[in-house]
Amino acid sequence: MADINREMRIVNIGLEGFYRELREQGVEAVQVDWRPPAGGDAALIGKLVALQREAVEKANAATVARIRESRPCWVDVQPAIEAIPGMEPDMLLHSGPPIAFEDMCDPQQRAVEAAAIFEGWVADRAGLEAGLRKGSIRLRPNCAFGSVGAMCGVISPSMQVLVTENLVFGNRSWTTFNEGRGNVIWMGTYDAGTLDRLRWMRDVLGPALKAALQARGEGIDIFKIVAEGILMGDEVHARSAACTLLLLRQLVPALLDTDVPRSVVAKIVEFVGGNNHSFLSLTLTACKAAADAAHGVPGSTVVTAMCRNGVDFALRVGGMDRWFVAPTAPMDEAVYYSGYGPDDAAGDIGDSAIVETAGLGGMVIGAAPSISSFVGGTMAHSREAMRVMRSICAGENPAFAPGAVDFLPGPLGIDVRKVVRHGITPIIDTGVLHKTSGVGQIGTGIARAPMAAFRDALLAMPIP
Amino acid sequence: MADINREMRIVNIGLEGFYRELREQGVEAVQVDWRPPAGGDAALIGKLVALQREAVEKANAATVARIRESRPCWVDVQPAIEAIPGMEPDMLLHSGPPIAFEDMCDPQQRAVEAAAIFEGWVADRAGLEAGLRKGSIRLRPNCAFGSVGAMCGVISPSMQVLVTENLVFGNRSWTTFNEGRGNVIWMGTYDAGTLDRLRWMRDVLGPALKAALQARGEGIDIFKIVAEGILMGDEVHARSAACTLLLLRQLVPALLDTDVPRSVVAKIVEFVGGNNHSFLSLTLTACKAAADAAHGVPGSTVVTAMCRNGVDFALRVGGMDRWFVAPTAPMDEAVYYSGYGPDDAAGDIGDSAIVETAGLGGMVIGAAPSISSFVGGTMAHSREAMRVMRSICAGENPAFAPGAVDFLPGPLGIDVRKVVRHGITPIIDTGVLHKTSGVGQIGTGIARAPMAAFRDALLAMPIP
Repeated sequence: MADINREMRIVNIGLEGFYRELREQGVEAVQVDWRPPAGGDAALIGKLVALQREAVEKANAATVARIRESRPCWVDVQPAIEAIPGMEPDMLLHSGPPIAFEDMCDPQQRAVEAAAIFEGWVADRAGLEAGLRKGSIRLRPNCAFGSVGAMCGVISPSMQVLVTENLVFGNRSWTTFNEGRGNVIWMGTYDAGTLDRLRWMRDVLGPALKAALQARGEGIDIFKIVAEGILMGDEVHARSAACTLLLLRQLVPALLDTDVPRSVVAKIVEFVGGNNHSFLSLTLTACKAAADAAHGVPGSTVVTAMCRNGVDFALRVGGMDRWFVAPTAPMDEAVYYSGYGPDDAAGDIGDSAIVETAGLGGMVIGAAPSISSFVGGTMAHSREAMRVMRSICAGENPAFAPGAVDFLPGPLGIDVRKVVRHGITPIIDTGVLHKTSGVGQIGTGIARAPMAAFRDALLAMPIP
Repeated sequence: MADINREMRIVNIGLEGFYRELREQGVEAVQVDWRPPAGGDAALIGKLVALQREAVEKANAATVARIRESRPCWVDVQPAIEAIPGMEPDMLLHSGPPIAFEDMCDPQQRAVEAAAIFEGWVADRAGLEAGLRKGSIRLRPNCAFGSVGAMCGVISPSMQVLVTENLVFGNRSWTTFNEGRGNVIWMGTYDAGTLDRLRWMRDVLGPALKAALQARGEGIDIFKIVAEGILMGDEVHARSAACTLLLLRQLVPALLDTDVPRSVVAKIVEFVGGNNHSFLSLTLTACKAAADAAHGVPGSTVVTAMCRNGVDFALRVGGMDRWFVAPTAPMDEAVYYSGYGPDDAAGDIGDSAIVETAGLGGMVIGAAPSISSFVGGTMAHSREAMRVMRSICAGENPAFAPGAVDFLPGPLGIDVRKVVRHGITPIIDTGVLHKTSGVGQIGTGIARAPMAAFRDALLAMPIP
């Protein structure tokens, strides 16, 4: 990975700007393993030269600043149909770009099926397929509504969603509560117990947490907890153990200040506290609310959303109102549960790449030594991975600075220009699902965003 | 600090054992900054040669193994007078070796005074001094009873103590609950609010936690939480933030399973969860219960206790039933609160050096990047500090292996032979108290154990 800047010394005829920029970032330009910028593609190089403009730099700085200034807070709990503007009673939302049911990967199909059964619309797969055919059930991507979903990311109308508001910019985002491990629809697997749990989450957990937030009288500041969690072993995508405990500390007194029976409070504490991914739902909505607020700066080449559905990856760039879609790249590096391997893996999936979009997860991989095995195994590798990610980002975030790598600020704001120029796409911390068997999660690892989407975005980018 | 092994290449005539041992530990012997072993003192060198025996190695390995095998669990809450065998109703226990009231440092005197008022024995300092003179109030050190106390470490008869039992070896240890920040007697300062808090801890907190442990039906495994906390930014002496949250996750459901009113449960959650030192009390008793179980192996040169009272430091060695006392060394490195400096500091104080004795705190400083500033500022410095501590220890503990330094096992079992030979004493993470003004804590830093106590212990050590 150390080769990313090395081309710069060679290619500084006619492209001095690139070289100077790297030098300004304190990067040493050493001539080893030379590669041409943008793979030597003339059209891409031409576009890169054209976008080497002050206006772009300013737009990108503004985009990054909006993410940094965002203050997303968890403010409410509501049924999805009430919370999410534009959602309609016959819709099932899913992660990633739009996709037809028959084209979905197996785990996402299973999650959709479970949600339709949970809603009481159908009894089985055949009923679901009939409903989809006659149009009584409609599939829509979260990205069209401002909502987000981890992994399969299915949200159905009566599911309770947590409502996160970006207090600085006023926009909101939504997602479901995390179900935990085992047979869970976010991992694309379910049984009768899964549906019981979903009902409990709808009828007990959601209303109780809503009451707790009301008793508290103010929202829960998500990035404040994240900043602390990053000093406690979380990179907040693959691992949210500390953030979950920090959340619990704020939730428990509020829950006790409601009418929720104490046995229910105890069960909620065990459910939330016993699942290290509980906080992930808050992180997703916070990153979405921050990235959405940062979207729409004319001329910005900074990515403001990334999502995947197991088949396709999609990204959006700050200066353009459209999505760029490409097939998901294979998992870069993963640890599989015993008995499973790369051949069993479904494609990279989930709206959770919004986490890396907002400068967390893989961008701060040095925060989580337990995840460092995916980038080489040592803290030195994690530090180097962060340095490489910094080379494709427009800025950094001192608020998210892992102590384990000497408080190195997390890279923030993926710049499609730099991604294409260096030939390096963002890493995304993620889980791995079985592609056919319905067993759910079979591993954890690092996915790579596919280069094609960044190339297409670059080529489509208007010159400001 | 890198010079500790460098003498070895020079001094390998007649002392090959030392050299071989370092080589076996994978230490490179480089000839720079040469220093004679044990400062060139003939008596000490003679004793070191005499103790270079297989019997000592075996005894030390057994001592370290006992600490590693220990399983200290928090099993009960009781008034000190009921819990601590040998404590009598007129006794006030304090940290460090035995000391007369008039010789105590100012903060410890204030803590004793507050405890005597709390017990209703006296109204003020004059009353306390009168009681001490006529013998109606007696001062005794925790180390004579198997109890421990953080900083000033005062335990009075009616205070509630947490009872920790080493499930493998059957022995117990005790300490008070942590009071938190502000005017608190563990930091040697008090006012009316301090005494109110102590009463609340005695009348409400203690009984509630006792009930919670009973409802839970089993103890709380302290080292299990510590092992997790070490992966989450705690070195569990100066910082116990993660461990405190991990504890809370176990306590809350148990508290809800009692008759304790929910408003009280909420207050306890806020009190325990709002104080990052809450878990420290559990760590102290766990380390004490482990180190006491390891004490008493004939021939062992491994330290099984270290404590300080602000004036004197004392240590005990596994193979001898006596204490070695020396004046406390000055703080090695500390960050002082605004307006204070080294001239304001009381001497190093507290029984909490039992934490380093059991292989935590300074021994695993790489676990807490926020503390690394005291040993040079970077994770590389913390790693080097752990390597240096390893050079004076008999073994290590893979269960306590900070992820931030690539899961380097914590050094365990301070060997007085190695301390004297290398001229390096253990580092102890600690707080700093004001020496006269009664303001309590004025900083945080690293103390050094004084060499004199280790030299005396070495000279007194029988040849097995």
